[in-house]
Amino acid sequence: MKVGGPQEIKTHEYRVGLVPGAVREYVAAGHTVLVETNAGAGIGATDDTYRKAGATIVGSAREVFASNEMIVKVKEPQPSEWAQLRENQILFTYLHLAPDPEQAKGLLKSGCTAIAYETVTDTHGGLPLLAPMSEVAGRLAIEAAGAALKRNAGGRGLLIGGVPGVQPARIVVIGGGVVGTHAARMATGLGAEVTILDRSLPRLRELDELFEGRVRTRFSTIEAVEEEVFAADVVGRFSFPVQARQNSSAAAC
Amino acid sequence: MKVGGPQEIKTHEYRVGLVPGAVREYVAAGHTVLVETNAGAGIGATDDTYRKAGATIVGSAREVFASNEMIVKVKEPQPSEWAQLRENQILFTYLHLAPDPEQAKGLLKSGCTAIAYETVTDTHGGLPLLAPMSEVAGRLAIEAAGAALKRNAGGRGLLIGGVPGVQPARIVVIGGGVVGTHAARMATGLGAEVTILDRSLPRLRELDELFEGRVRTRFSTIEAVEEEVFAADVVGRFSFPVQARQNSSAAAC
Amino acid sequence: MKVGGPQEIKTHEYRVGLVPGAVREYVAAGHTVLVETNAGAGIGATDDTYRKAGATIVGSAREVFASNEMIVKVKEPQPSEWAQLRENQILFTYLHLAPDPEQAKGLLKSGCTAIAYETVTDTHGGLPLLAPMSEVAGRLAIEAAGAALKRNAGGRGLLIGGVPGVQPARIVVIGGGVVGTHAARMATGLGAEVTILDRSLPRLRELDELFEGRVRTRFSTIEAVEEEVFAADVVGRFSFPVQARQNSSAAAC
Amino acid sequence: MKVGGPQEIKTHEYRVGLVPGAVREYVAAGHTVLVETNAGAGIGATDDTYRKAGATIVGSAREVFASNEMIVKVKEPQPSEWAQLRENQILFTYLHLAPDPEQAKGLLKSGCTAIAYETVTDTHGGLPLLAPMSEVAGRLAIEAAGAALKRNAGGRGLLIGGVPGVQPARIVVIGGGVVGTHAARMATGLGAEVTILDRSLPRLRELDELFEGRVRTRFSTIEAVEEEVFAADVVGRFSFPVQARQNSSAAAC
Amino acid sequence: MKVGGPQEIKTHEYRVGLVPGAVREYVAAGHTVLVETNAGAGIGATDDTYRKAGATIVGSAREVFASNEMIVKVKEPQPSEWAQLRENQILFTYLHLAPDPEQAKGLLKSGCTAIAYETVTDTHGGLPLLAPMSEVAGRLAIEAAGAALKRNAGGRGLLIGGVPGVQPARIVVIGGGVVGTHAARMATGLGAEVTILDRSLPRLRELDELFEGRVRTRFSTIEAVEEEVFAADVVGRFSFPVQARQNSSAAAC
Amino acid sequence: MKVGGPQEIKTHEYRVGLVPGAVREYVAAGHTVLVETNAGAGIGATDDTYRKAGATIVGSAREVFASNEMIVKVKEPQPSEWAQLRENQILFTYLHLAPDPEQAKGLLKSGCTAIAYETVTDTHGGLPLLAPMSEVAGRLAIEAAGAALKRNAGGRGLLIGGVPGVQPARIVVIGGGVVGTHAARMATGLGAEVTILDRSLPRLRELDELFEGRVRTRFSTIEAVEEEVFAADVVGRFSFPVQARQNSSAAAC
Repeated sequence: MKVGGPQEIKTHEYRVGLVPGAVREYVAAGHTVLVETNAGAGIGATDDTYRKAGATIVGSAREVFASNEMIVKVKEPQPSEWAQLRENQILFTYLHLAPDPEQAKGLLKSGCTAIAYETVTDTHGGLPLLAPMSEVAGRLAIEAAGAALKRNAGGRGLLIGGVPGVQPARIVVIGGGVVGTHAARMATGLGAEVTILDRSLPRLRELDELFEGRVRTRFSTIEAVEEEVFAADVVGRFSFPVQARQNSSAAAC
Repeated sequence: MKVGGPQEIKTHEYRVGLVPGAVREYVAAGHTVLVETNAGAGIGATDDTYRKAGATIVGSAREVFASNEMIVKVKEPQPSEWAQLRENQILFTYLHLAPDPEQAKGLLKSGCTAIAYETVTDTHGGLPLLAPMSEVAGRLAIEAAGAALKRNAGGRGLLIGGVPGVQPARIVVIGGGVVGTHAARMATGLGAEVTILDRSLPRLRELDELFEGRVRTRFSTIEAVEEEVFAADVVGRFSFPVQARQNSSAAAC
Repeated sequence: MKVGGPQEIKTHEYRVGLVPGAVREYVAAGHTVLVETNAGAGIGATDDTYRKAGATIVGSAREVFASNEMIVKVKEPQPSEWAQLRENQILFTYLHLAPDPEQAKGLLKSGCTAIAYETVTDTHGGLPLLAPMSEVAGRLAIEAAGAALKRNAGGRGLLIGGVPGVQPARIVVIGGGVVGTHAARMATGLGAEVTILDRSLPRLRELDELFEGRVRTRFSTIEAVEEEVFAADVVGRFSFPVQARQNSSAAAC
Repeated sequence: MKVGGPQEIKTHEYRVGLVPGAVREYVAAGHTVLVETNAGAGIGATDDTYRKAGATIVGSAREVFASNEMIVKVKEPQPSEWAQLRENQILFTYLHLAPDPEQAKGLLKSGCTAIAYETVTDTHGGLPLLAPMSEVAGRLAIEAAGAALKRNAGGRGLLIGGVPGVQPARIVVIGGGVVGTHAARMATGLGAEVTILDRSLPRLRELDELFEGRVRTRFSTIEAVEEEVFAADVVGRFSFPVQARQNSSAAAC
Repeated sequence: MKVGGPQEIKTHEYRVGLVPGAVREYVAAGHTVLVETNAGAGIGATDDTYRKAGATIVGSAREVFASNEMIVKVKEPQPSEWAQLRENQILFTYLHLAPDPEQAKGLLKSGCTAIAYETVTDTHGGLPLLAPMSEVAGRLAIEAAGAALKRNAGGRGLLIGGVPGVQPARIVVIGGGVVGTHAARMATGLGAEVTILDRSLPRLRELDELFEGRVRTRFSTIEAVEEEVFAADVVGRFSFPVQARQNSSAAAC
Repeated sequence: MKVGGPQEIKTHEYRVGLVPGAVREYVAAGHTVLVETNAGAGIGATDDTYRKAGATIVGSAREVFASNEMIVKVKEPQPSEWAQLRENQILFTYLHLAPDPEQAKGLLKSGCTAIAYETVTDTHGGLPLLAPMSEVAGRLAIEAAGAALKRNAGGRGLLIGGVPGVQPARIVVIGGGVVGTHAARMATGLGAEVTILDRSLPRLRELDELFEGRVRTRFSTIEAVEEEVFAADVVGRFSFPVQARQNSSAAAC
């Protein structure tokens, strides 16, 4: 198959769909790979790195879209990209179509086959391409909480883990799924006092075993949420509202 | 030296000063050991066990007191024992004389040299014969707390460690010395939420490293004690009042 | 639905089926809740707490049974309660009918639909309403063992975890299910030397990972049981006889 | 003694020397305490909180400086404050005089007795009032590193702890003292790959025991520093240059 | 059933299929057991031990093969054993037939029913009789690696775990299945720096939770393998080539 | 100072006293360093590596001994080396003179100042240059034990850590000093059941905290040693006989 990797064009998007290691896998499997020049600039990968991995470098996104059977991106395609997609072409990237009907129309019009990372499902019903994003989100959430607690950021002037003799921040994690679990791991790693609320008792049991008593697990009732949230310094709500879960792939975590 | 081990006579004292293993050490070091028959009954050690360890068994405490240079006990001597002690004899046992002037007078009158376990000091100022009692006390304290929390014992009906999804008991340990530390180890081992209060910040740092974040350490101020005690399900106070520490060997933990 | 919570009437039953937090959930979901006065006395919940949660307080169990579509209890109904149940009424509580044919007859006669907590099964074959009881049972078992080992309770005079330099108690847990696992967690938390015997090697592997080497796992053969039990200070047998497991919901742990 | 607590006046200084809990300790010990109105605003403590703790609130710093025997601050005094200090008055705060000769002259001129927190030494040669600042500094350092690694902050776009399947950041901590140790604890807590370099092998041994193998300890030679720093994503240098350590209390961590 | 246990005859095979504990289980279940004299010599079990477990001892393998319905061994049968097997007899042992067509022919010719331990499959698709061998293999692999790293064995002169201040060996485990996981547990237990490569991200997540951050998990690409292997002191490759997995039960780990 | 590093000449000595990193430190501190060609062959360090570190390479040990003020080795000097040492020259290496009077005479005759690594004492009475050897010895001891337990090495055919469901080896460590502690760390890391015996209760307490309950600590009496040794699969005796400790620097661990 001919696989193409254009540079991402959305503002502040530093990632790239086709990393050099992936190029090497495609090439080893007998595919040919075209990569737009500077596609890896945001992750510190030069054109030369791509060439060593087996890619051919081309000077423009236009060439990438024009000559490949599958386009690998990370961000949803932008309007200028919809226009370049065509029938018999596969687009492989995050789409998050639910809140973005314009994109959906653009993709339909192009006639391409668009596979959204966030909807790829494994044999156990898991979302293998979404889970790493949730892990990242959960871990980043605690770094964000730490920053938000600083006094000069308008916070309460707390250090997440306190220091010996001084109480740590009390962090409540609502929803013990992938995001919540990774948030809780970072929070306990920094020394916070963490409570995880979830409506699944089996999941709370797993978390109790995973954290070996380092987090409090609490069954999530209205009362429990109220008590915990009012007593908390930081609250992270990582569970889906039921409706969003059914209708939308957008609420990634 | 001739070493003698009488049976303990105080009600509910099941221990014995000279355990068979100690007899064996004395004998190996060239001493002779006389043990009263049934001295080890409370710990399940028969006269035969003592004989195998090298002791001679005699039929009465009187014989033990009469013919030995050092008497090894565990409980403070009772009035009938004071009368049997004599000059040039060493008594080695816990004494706890401070609250017990009658015993002090009895010992003075006997003319013996009485060495109280609880006052033996090592080169670093530690109390090597008192520390194990403090360890035992701290560990037992949590078992006692567990029993006291039971509803049928008049308690709040709490399980120290809760279960997954249900909050554990909140245990406050005042004083992070030997007793408090061992109490905190048992409490965290059972899954409780533990806070240790101490007026020594260096000690709180040591505890923070020892427990690796599993207990909260808090510098003990009036305010901190008030907040923690009112929020606690169990409070253990294991620190000495300053005066007791100076004047008395009695307040063992 | 109209949901009613009577006070428990069996001696030494301090629990209550409808806790205030549950009332709040029912009310938030659009149900109406009637609670007998003093129903929460045993858990320290006043009538006022129930009122704040949205319940109406009535003066007698009779009123609760008379006017509700579902009766929520925790203990199996007593003879005086069978008489108050009626057709078209749901009873939701622990029943443990196997050893109690009189109760079964009483319930049949009432015509009510009785759902036993201990038989509610989740999609993976688990028993979600029984598991917490098993967790509590396993945790309590070790507190009971600690009490039974005390010399003044007729025990061997051992402290479960020993102290540094002194051997801990050797505790053998037969059956690595929910009860056994929680018992083992408490025992290791207190510092005991723990062996878990089970006839499922996959379960022993899970336990080996869970305890990270802190318990010995041993495949349960006649020989292994014999060796371990004779060497143990405490033995907890938490596995079902096969027949009991098939015929009875009573032998909960 | 009459103890006074003025509000801090340096820009972005949100702390206050006399916290309400400390006021309560002074008052309980028989001292009188005057606090400037709004002194606790930056930490969320109202005048009322101070009053409840036993302080008298006054309307200006002038009144605080005029009528008290000891002034408790946290930040070094500013020029307007030097002018208000006087003979027979104790100033208790951080001073960091080494790089600030103007302040030294101002204090000398005032005639007050100024005790710098950072120079208070305990019986083991430790710096009890400096150590908590070092703990805070070490912990904050890792939060700062996390922020600096973000791509939109100009960093390499790394998450400190990576996620499963993706390598974590490699963090090198130069100097295994208080700051370095706390930085390493936070870094390992977040999942980083941490190496601590130190020139004291005994200290590396302590750290090896403290971290139980979770950090690499490496004896610090020119070669080791070179190798580790070039391989690292983040480097924290927390050791004093020798000269600074001798001459100056300023280089707090 | 009549169960027979011959002595193993292959050179350097010290194991025995029927251990005394298993004999006891068979006998308790109503079977009769014949064991060849000295069958347990390699594991230190005397004929007497077998007799106490309920076995009858016979003087030759011939008698064992002649008179039993099931033969329990551990090693694949040797040519002299094929000849003694017969129709209506079950052979229960490891076979590993894939690379050993001669054995396959020998067994076919005997007419016996041969059940290979390594092909017994549980209800979840696991290989319960193979898994323990894989666990042993993984654990032994690290002991072997430790020996191979010694200078006098031609190695690099490294100690797997280093010592404080000196870098440990860098061990790369390719394949995070049973063998690789147990190898990684031993390697981290000895203090090595361990990376596990696997092509299953869900498995890497499980390993990340199991090891709580003590091993690096890395998704296995050509690039990752290349980088890790070149940086490693020890490499263990514990994954199946795809083809071997499909065609053969021989490549057990 | 002129520092010289000859190649080690004793059979099977692969180490070298002057490693390249040390050369770099000496040179950075203003010293000049001469290294014999191939001195680093045993550790994989080429002459070029030494040159890059700042050393001058010379063709023979004779040149190294002839022109330097300090000779740095690792192994005790051999007879041919005694002859090359001279007055006003420092020899810095392990000596272990106690069991080697010939060496002592040789050194005395040379007139050099010989400083034995094993006798260098720090301000706390520690032996900083001996401790790493003890750490290595303790860690190697367990690898040696693992090898000795193998059946083909004449052992009992045990795997140190067993596997899930199978008992691990029981390892008794006599003496909880540096060697014993490191041996115990490796043994617990491999999953063994470890008991440490020591006559110092304070040391047992430290070990109990260090191992967090993963090893049994037991006060070492004749009785305890007897019981533990007879029950053990492996015994490591790492304590000095009292006399050896006083008279000899040779019995390093």
